[in-house]
Amino acid sequence: MLSDVNLRSLFNPESIAVVGASRSGHKLGNVILSNLVSAGYRGKLMPVNPAGGEILGLAASPSVRELPHPPDLGIIVLPREQVLTAMEELADAHVSAICVITAGFRETGRDGFELEMEMADLARRRNVTLLGPNSLGLVNTAIGLNATIAQAKPSRGSIAFFSQSGALCSAILDWADGEGIGFSKFVSLGNKAGVSEADVLESLGNDPETKVIIGYLESVDDGQKFLSKARAVTEKKPVIMIKAGTTPSGARATSSHTGSMAGSVVASTAAFKQAGIIQVESLESLFDLARAFAEQPLPTGPNLTVVTNSGGPGILAADACEDADLHLARPTMETLEVLSKALPPFAAIYNPIDIIGDADADRYRVTLEAVAKDEMSNAILVLLTPTASAQIKETAQAVIDIAADCDKPVFASFMGDSRIGPGRDMLLDAGIPCYGYPEPAIRAISAMLAHHRWKNRPYPVEVCFRRDQGRASRAIKRAKRLGLSELPFNEAMEIATAYELPVPEIRLVRTSDQAVRAAKKLGYPVALKIVSPHISSRSDVDGVALNLATPRDVRDAWLDITSRAQRKRPDAYITGCLVQTMGPVKARAVVVRFTQDPQFGPLVSFSLAGPSAEVLGDISYRLAPLTLQDVQDIVREIKSFPLLRGVRGEEPVNLAAIEDILLSMSQMATDFPEIREMVLDPVLVDSEEAMVTDIRLTVG
Amino acid sequence: MLSDVNLRSLFNPESIAVVGASRSGHKLGNVILSNLVSAGYRGKLMPVNPAGGEILGLAASPSVRELPHPPDLGIIVLPREQVLTAMEELADAHVSAICVITAGFRETGRDGFELEMEMADLARRRNVTLLGPNSLGLVNTAIGLNATIAQAKPSRGSIAFFSQSGALCSAILDWADGEGIGFSKFVSLGNKAGVSEADVLESLGNDPETKVIIGYLESVDDGQKFLSKARAVTEKKPVIMIKAGTTPSGARATSSHTGSMAGSVVASTAAFKQAGIIQVESLESLFDLARAFAEQPLPTGPNLTVVTNSGGPGILAADACEDADLHLARPTMETLEVLSKALPPFAAIYNPIDIIGDADADRYRVTLEAVAKDEMSNAILVLLTPTASAQIKETAQAVIDIAADCDKPVFASFMGDSRIGPGRDMLLDAGIPCYGYPEPAIRAISAMLAHHRWKNRPYPVEVCFRRDQGRASRAIKRAKRLGLSELPFNEAMEIATAYELPVPEIRLVRTSDQAVRAAKKLGYPVALKIVSPHISSRSDVDGVALNLATPRDVRDAWLDITSRAQRKRPDAYITGCLVQTMGPVKARAVVVRFTQDPQFGPLVSFSLAGPSAEVLGDISYRLAPLTLQDVQDIVREIKSFPLLRGVRGEEPVNLAAIEDILLSMSQMATDFPEIREMVLDPVLVDSEEAMVTDIRLTVG
Repeated sequence: MLSDVNLRSLFNPESIAVVGASRSGHKLGNVILSNLVSAGYRGKLMPVNPAGGEILGLAASPSVRELPHPPDLGIIVLPREQVLTAMEELADAHVSAICVITAGFRETGRDGFELEMEMADLARRRNVTLLGPNSLGLVNTAIGLNATIAQAKPSRGSIAFFSQSGALCSAILDWADGEGIGFSKFVSLGNKAGVSEADVLESLGNDPETKVIIGYLESVDDGQKFLSKARAVTEKKPVIMIKAGTTPSGARATSSHTGSMAGSVVASTAAFKQAGIIQVESLESLFDLARAFAEQPLPTGPNLTVVTNSGGPGILAADACEDADLHLARPTMETLEVLSKALPPFAAIYNPIDIIGDADADRYRVTLEAVAKDEMSNAILVLLTPTASAQIKETAQAVIDIAADCDKPVFASFMGDSRIGPGRDMLLDAGIPCYGYPEPAIRAISAMLAHHRWKNRPYPVEVCFRRDQGRASRAIKRAKRLGLSELPFNEAMEIATAYELPVPEIRLVRTSDQAVRAAKKLGYPVALKIVSPHISSRSDVDGVALNLATPRDVRDAWLDITSRAQRKRPDAYITGCLVQTMGPVKARAVVVRFTQDPQFGPLVSFSLAGPSAEVLGDISYRLAPLTLQDVQDIVREIKSFPLLRGVRGEEPVNLAAIEDILLSMSQMATDFPEIREMVLDPVLVDSEEAMVTDIRLTVG
Repeated sequence: MLSDVNLRSLFNPESIAVVGASRSGHKLGNVILSNLVSAGYRGKLMPVNPAGGEILGLAASPSVRELPHPPDLGIIVLPREQVLTAMEELADAHVSAICVITAGFRETGRDGFELEMEMADLARRRNVTLLGPNSLGLVNTAIGLNATIAQAKPSRGSIAFFSQSGALCSAILDWADGEGIGFSKFVSLGNKAGVSEADVLESLGNDPETKVIIGYLESVDDGQKFLSKARAVTEKKPVIMIKAGTTPSGARATSSHTGSMAGSVVASTAAFKQAGIIQVESLESLFDLARAFAEQPLPTGPNLTVVTNSGGPGILAADACEDADLHLARPTMETLEVLSKALPPFAAIYNPIDIIGDADADRYRVTLEAVAKDEMSNAILVLLTPTASAQIKETAQAVIDIAADCDKPVFASFMGDSRIGPGRDMLLDAGIPCYGYPEPAIRAISAMLAHHRWKNRPYPVEVCFRRDQGRASRAIKRAKRLGLSELPFNEAMEIATAYELPVPEIRLVRTSDQAVRAAKKLGYPVALKIVSPHISSRSDVDGVALNLATPRDVRDAWLDITSRAQRKRPDAYITGCLVQTMGPVKARAVVVRFTQDPQFGPLVSFSLAGPSAEVLGDISYRLAPLTLQDVQDIVREIKSFPLLRGVRGEEPVNLAAIEDILLSMSQMATDFPEIREMVLDPVLVDSEEAMVTDIRLTVG
């Protein structure tokens, strides 16, 4: 694993060798050198080209061995076949980091993949930090380092960007250039043979030049490492990411693109959530949010004030608030008093504050001054349409003045094009995000609020549960010894008991008399379930009877179940039946499950039993180990949660009992990576207690 | 009601009087006259100003009475108090249409509202078409008519826009100007005292200059009229609308803005759907779609081909397809053969076709030529990132050339800013929509496909059901005579029977002996339900027993139910019990309901019984009368539909039986506007039959 120190030579090299530097303007070996020169890099730049001579005014060495000075960073822009040798030579020259621009490795098939493995291996052996291959390069504006093959020239700013797609980087640089957005760092990860997204994230987290981190990912290599690094970074600064390949079509496209597996979407979404990463759906949102976070303070609450000279956009903003979990702030009496004096009689002084179409800049100013002071308001959005009376530049100036004196975030949406252009430019120059429509502003404020809440959440408590790990371990070993992948019910129950899951009392009986005696001992009502080594699914033979309340019921059920099983499966040996205490009677049924995700490790899920999960997909996910906050969130996140809280005057179910089960499951998933899947279905829960009435457990 | 003819004088006047024309550049009475002059209106322009003289080179009449010529259209830009008199005078001068720019009416409170009512009344009496008040004006670029107070100058095009928000119009004109988008017509509806959204929609539908209609609405005045007019228009051309006030916050803001009621959101959404209107969520989508519809042919199927020089955006496009109900087209063998020959070995020839980062314009061209011929592909999206090798203008030209020879819609997303700018401008000039990101292109293609399907849907069949309307009517009258608003169960059942709804057979019995005899006659199993004039909710007294299979069960249940009712409600007179045949046993329970929406009339809804509807809001809506297509859609639209179709090998329920019930309910809702609400809850349905086992019916 890389330490942060290693990335220093990548981002802050004192000398650079460009291996494959070229005289020909078309070639990437020329583009990258020319970018390095023109960005004003002040360290030592050493082109390497077999012909020697001079390139772009720099003396070129004929080979790496003949470099005048050991380089900190080596950049390789050579044909694929020559890359490995060049790496070897750079390592001999005591390079600390290598960036391989060359493409044609893992993404092209088996040969490329094997070559890439050799490169990764070499980097590890020689203790060299490897970025790429198939990287567009990297940028550190603080030292004038532009080691990319992109055409655009990134300007300096406080946003750091990292991307798994190289060509996308070129679009982003061009876009940022036009929008006047600057970067602190810019990293194209390429195939991630060495430096991973987790390494870069950690490094950018420690970078004092970086206020906001944005990223584009198609795959995550080591989910647990990524999660823990990211969690530390988001304590310090916002991380906004777009994950591509989140649908089946997208995932297929991903694997044909990078040769990497897209991995489970629910697992990566859960990881992002648990790491406090803001996940967005589109590139547009990525940039909208980047600008907002870079330039405005975080709102400390959900109450937004909208000031507008046009009713329509005000309504659209109000609609968008509802979707974004923001509220329209209720103005204080003081504010209302000021506004009702200052505004014309037909203005709407309640929020959205509609200062109407004939508003000039002064009317905006007086309104904004009142709102800026209003302690009920946590954020301000100024809407302007270019009416005949609108004073666009003067209004922009009023917004700028008010924002300068105000600790709330201030956003604008000046709607239109050339007429509002001068105002928009003034706002952007002054660091006030100005969008073409109200909706992106509201999405940005909402994301910033979420980040504020994340940073101020209670300290995450990881819970370690009392359990008898040895007893569970022995049960798993017994099953493995027998070559079983799915554990027998009684062994699964044994493990559940070892982890103190609330399970019903159970007796295995072989006659109806024994069944009646067992029922008496356990207490009525009971359930009766067929047991046979040859019948794996009881429902196939209708082998379960529930809620048996009397000895008579038990005898009838015994006859029913066993004779039906013999009729339907004459070949099966019937061991007997289980007698089992019933769970809570008027209960809700929920399902708790964990599986092992190949990239992110143990993934816990929660849902109601039945169609809400199976048909409507109302299931929530978190990665284990779960914190106390996680279990509260996973339970409350499902849309069906009101059924657990109680609808129409019902009592709420015992949520703490469910949360305890989730914590135990998290513990078990962490203790036993060899458990491939464990499903508690159903867990019955009422206002008093929860009981796990069936378990399926598979080892792998 | 206005006929289309009346709107002619509004859009195509031969002469115009501007009442309130002003010499002072700041005043709206000057702005509008100057707009009329500079847009090159060739009809007769007659300013009216008490001072007479000349304004902007035109001779001004001191009053309407002194106009040299009777005007077709009168435009009023006067203080509020003078508007009514001016209208009267214009009517005397035989004006056909009046547009009132002046604001300060309904939107400002009671006085304004009453004044507006007088204006509406005057217009009706004098047979004058009234646009506004509080309108920004209107535009007809075909005759150089710009009768607005907006600052921007709309250019000619094929998009018509109408809006309930005036200030929004000014933003839109400015935006369109910058984007090079032209309009055929442009109408600011204002307070809609005379001309309504339905009138304008009909007129734009008949306008040969208009290819696409876009609109912004906050309220719909006569929902049924709007629905039928809109349905006729969408047969001819696409109508794209944004409805503001679709959330509680937005609705509150709406009513304070225009003084109009936002109305039920589900009803307006249903109306838009049934009228074939494309409803969008944001202004941005409104314009994105307007451009797409105006410039490209409709796709005839869901299969999209994506060509890209960068894997990342290709994956994002694939992700977006899934959300938008589009598929990635599977290339034909011919296409694959061409591509595998023409493209470098590392290119991805399956869709998204990734021609990789070093692609030049020729590689785009050869790929697009193959795709344009591919009969499995219904639409093409070209993505470009400005890599070092990208030939941006040449690639734009290739796209333009291919699109010219291709009957499929072609879209582009050139990503970046100044570097891709020249290419983007070429594409836009050539009528190829080019977006900054892949997602808006995909949303546009998806909306166009929906419109294609709408235009090619089966001819809508309205079904008239056999029923005994008189019998139902008598039952309603009896209830009304008794002053009941909720009908007794037996009367509700009577009405259901008159409309041939499948209801269980029922007997009212007074003793347990009678109950057993009734059960024998009806056939076991039966249900038993308490009947008492003093008990309205049976569940309060646990007054229902289901699935009684034997005489013994019936007697036990009788004792249970009646004694419990007496114990819980000692004051209640117990009439007896209903004995009722059970519905299908292993059935799904669904709910069918209709209510009367104040703006849209009878609104039918459908859902499963239970939490999917109550907690998760999985309910679908349509306005009555329902067509055959509507009932099929309303049933299939709920997310829980798989449960009706059958999951895990279950048999599907009898959907036709549910559809028949929905058609009967639609008929009843149309026949009896005095039924305020009718709820069939539950309707039990299995693979054989459906049965309505409980009804609640309220008259108003």
